[in-house]
Amino acid sequence: MSMLVTRRERFSAGHRLYNPAFSEAENARIFGKCSNPTGHGHNYVLEVTVEGSLEPATGYVIDLSKLSELIRERIIDDVDHRNLNQDVDWLQGQNPTTEVLASAFWDRLEAHLPSGRLHSLRLGETDKNWAERRRDGN
Amino acid sequence: MSMLVTRRERFSAGHRLYNPAFSEAENARIFGKCSNPTGHGHNYVLEVTVEGSLEPATGYVIDLSKLSELIRERIIDDVDHRNLNQDVDWLQGQNPTTEVLASAFWDRLEAHLPSGRLHSLRLGETDKNWAERRRDGN
Amino acid sequence: MSMLVTRRERFSAGHRLYNPAFSEAENARIFGKCSNPTGHGHNYVLEVTVEGSLEPATGYVIDLSKLSELIRERIIDDVDHRNLNQDVDWLQGQNPTTEVLASAFWDRLEAHLPSGRLHSLRLGETDKNWAERRRDGN
Amino acid sequence: MSMLVTRRERFSAGHRLYNPAFSEAENARIFGKCSNPTGHGHNYVLEVTVEGSLEPATGYVIDLSKLSELIRERIIDDVDHRNLNQDVDWLQGQNPTTEVLASAFWDRLEAHLPSGRLHSLRLGETDKNWAERRRDGN
Amino acid sequence: MSMLVTRRERFSAGHRLYNPAFSEAENARIFGKCSNPTGHGHNYVLEVTVEGSLEPATGYVIDLSKLSELIRERIIDDVDHRNLNQDVDWLQGQNPTTEVLASAFWDRLEAHLPSGRLHSLRLGETDKNWAERRRDGN
Amino acid sequence: MSMLVTRRERFSAGHRLYNPAFSEAENARIFGKCSNPTGHGHNYVLEVTVEGSLEPATGYVIDLSKLSELIRERIIDDVDHRNLNQDVDWLQGQNPTTEVLASAFWDRLEAHLPSGRLHSLRLGETDKNWAERRRDGN
Repeated sequence: MSMLVTRRERFSAGHRLYNPAFSEAENARIFGKCSNPTGHGHNYVLEVTVEGSLEPATGYVIDLSKLSELIRERIIDDVDHRNLNQDVDWLQGQNPTTEVLASAFWDRLEAHLPSGRLHSLRLGETDKNWAERRRDGN
Repeated sequence: MSMLVTRRERFSAGHRLYNPAFSEAENARIFGKCSNPTGHGHNYVLEVTVEGSLEPATGYVIDLSKLSELIRERIIDDVDHRNLNQDVDWLQGQNPTTEVLASAFWDRLEAHLPSGRLHSLRLGETDKNWAERRRDGN
Repeated sequence: MSMLVTRRERFSAGHRLYNPAFSEAENARIFGKCSNPTGHGHNYVLEVTVEGSLEPATGYVIDLSKLSELIRERIIDDVDHRNLNQDVDWLQGQNPTTEVLASAFWDRLEAHLPSGRLHSLRLGETDKNWAERRRDGN
Repeated sequence: MSMLVTRRERFSAGHRLYNPAFSEAENARIFGKCSNPTGHGHNYVLEVTVEGSLEPATGYVIDLSKLSELIRERIIDDVDHRNLNQDVDWLQGQNPTTEVLASAFWDRLEAHLPSGRLHSLRLGETDKNWAERRRDGN
Repeated sequence: MSMLVTRRERFSAGHRLYNPAFSEAENARIFGKCSNPTGHGHNYVLEVTVEGSLEPATGYVIDLSKLSELIRERIIDDVDHRNLNQDVDWLQGQNPTTEVLASAFWDRLEAHLPSGRLHSLRLGETDKNWAERRRDGN
Repeated sequence: MSMLVTRRERFSAGHRLYNPAFSEAENARIFGKCSNPTGHGHNYVLEVTVEGSLEPATGYVIDLSKLSELIRERIIDDVDHRNLNQDVDWLQGQNPTTEVLASAFWDRLEAHLPSGRLHSLRLGETDKNWAERRRDGN
């Protein structure tokens, strides 16, 4: 039996899609309105999925309130109501696309799970646009 | 080609997270407010996914109205507006976490599908907390 | 100009529709499955709307994070993950229908608003069933 | 008979709550994390409601695709993927709270409706926080 | 105290916006893609709001399961999975815009409520387009 | 690392479930109300998921605005506000179930992706009924 649990969290942040290796004109051409210099932002939805076996004494794969705390400490506290291009140490030098953020969030969590292992991490920047990093082979 | 169909159903139920092998204090420590002795409840969302081949004459993997009836007969009629700790024969002696419920619901359905085979069963107790049982290898 | 602001909160609770002045059979006839003796529960959605003038220095009718704290202190902390028939002092002796809860929640908030005045309070027990108390004349 | 029609639109923007008449410390105290200097942002939901009589030949109060175009020309094109503190002429000098934005958006639309009259305009910056301007007496 | 309760229902139907007094070209110009001759359809959301006093013995303004049955008998059974231009006696000769449908649905319900009185009826044909009929003075 | 991105689009269409090889009575028995001869319709939700590597210069697996344009050109422009039994060349002779549509939509997109490869395509005809085609082995 394969068992997964998911915790969904939300945060709001500002960003601008921008690669300093490109000229302003290239950034505008490639990233369009997402590269507007003064920035914009989103209400992000973050879904973290952990796989593992059902622990018989608790009936849990992982205590989702503990997973929520971990997501808060390792991710949300750093990004909520922040500018993702400027304010977050562990995002420095990265272009904050949904894919890049999902990948960076994975790296913030993977080694810190108290039980189970990270199966997938899904991030939505709007209802229309989502990125997901999955463990290889899933 | 791999083809999946999903039926989403909803029900409301009461429960309390509680393991009788633990003391009241241990239950309170481990399950927190979810172990409040008088119980609480949720509007559950249940998503049942069946995989199979597309039957050429109907264009169906499985008739979703028949799948809905099956879910109703085997699960919803027993749990809707019920107390999951006390009222459901086939949950007796189990701690009704989302994971445990998802696993028990799978066992109620798997052998009864008229066509296709069960691929995954996902249960949400709130918008934030989800559990999913998948067939091994999926 | 008429200005309204709304804060939406969520909580989960257990309840049973039941009037002790009715026989068990009458309760079952009138309230149907909602009167199941062992109780069930819901994920409630609570929307509190305050009307007032736009304070020029802040651009606020009321600081919604302060309104959220007030709702938490006066309502959510008492009802979340509780049994609404048994656990809440200020609901004692009341039948916890959505209408009765919306009215009681109004009474818990009205005199405590730091600015503006209560315009309406809306409570959903499922996506399908809602009750709203409004100020007379609204 | 009173007839209302509503068009819902969405946009994403950046902002910072900030009153230049306050010190940085006062801004931080009053607006909290919403006043973070580098800015953040939201996926806004905008609901514009028009009241009027049902035009017999069309069955419309107002053609909602025309209302959508008007909202786009007068509001969305100026604010989508923009910084609301810096990029929008008609918001200059205003603190972009949800209330202030709802009020400013009303002023951008009211005189331009081809039929009916503006009844209410509702803006959500998250699922939890909403502001609404209504015509006096509604 | 003013008390409202709302029941939300859903149905799917087909329609075409079309006024036989107009030429095909006029219909195409006025109603655009909504006038495509072969028809299209929507998943409609219907919200019926009843106002009344809280009946002390039940805690109900109106039993929402009874309101649901009434909506089903008077509206949903006639329109669900039907063509709104052709299949519904009480819509004959009307152009099925959201406004026209909301108004016709009101007329199907108003005289039949067992308690309370109809306050408003809101219909959405998509997440973006809504119409609402309200009692005069509301 | 496995990376997926998803674009969600919406369209409204009419259809009737019908196999001309069946008699009218058989169609009615097999497809129920979905086979009503005058047709009905839905607001469809389409989710297209592409897998690929994260392109370092852009931080994209695929530019989701380009994926959106592709979905529009290859699918939405042909099906939105259309009758799926009659109006779409590439659906001729097929019974427009959710499964059949999801499979046909896959075939419209797969060879046309500018980068990445199609991982899965999910289509909802209502909130309750979904079909998904996945690449073999996923």
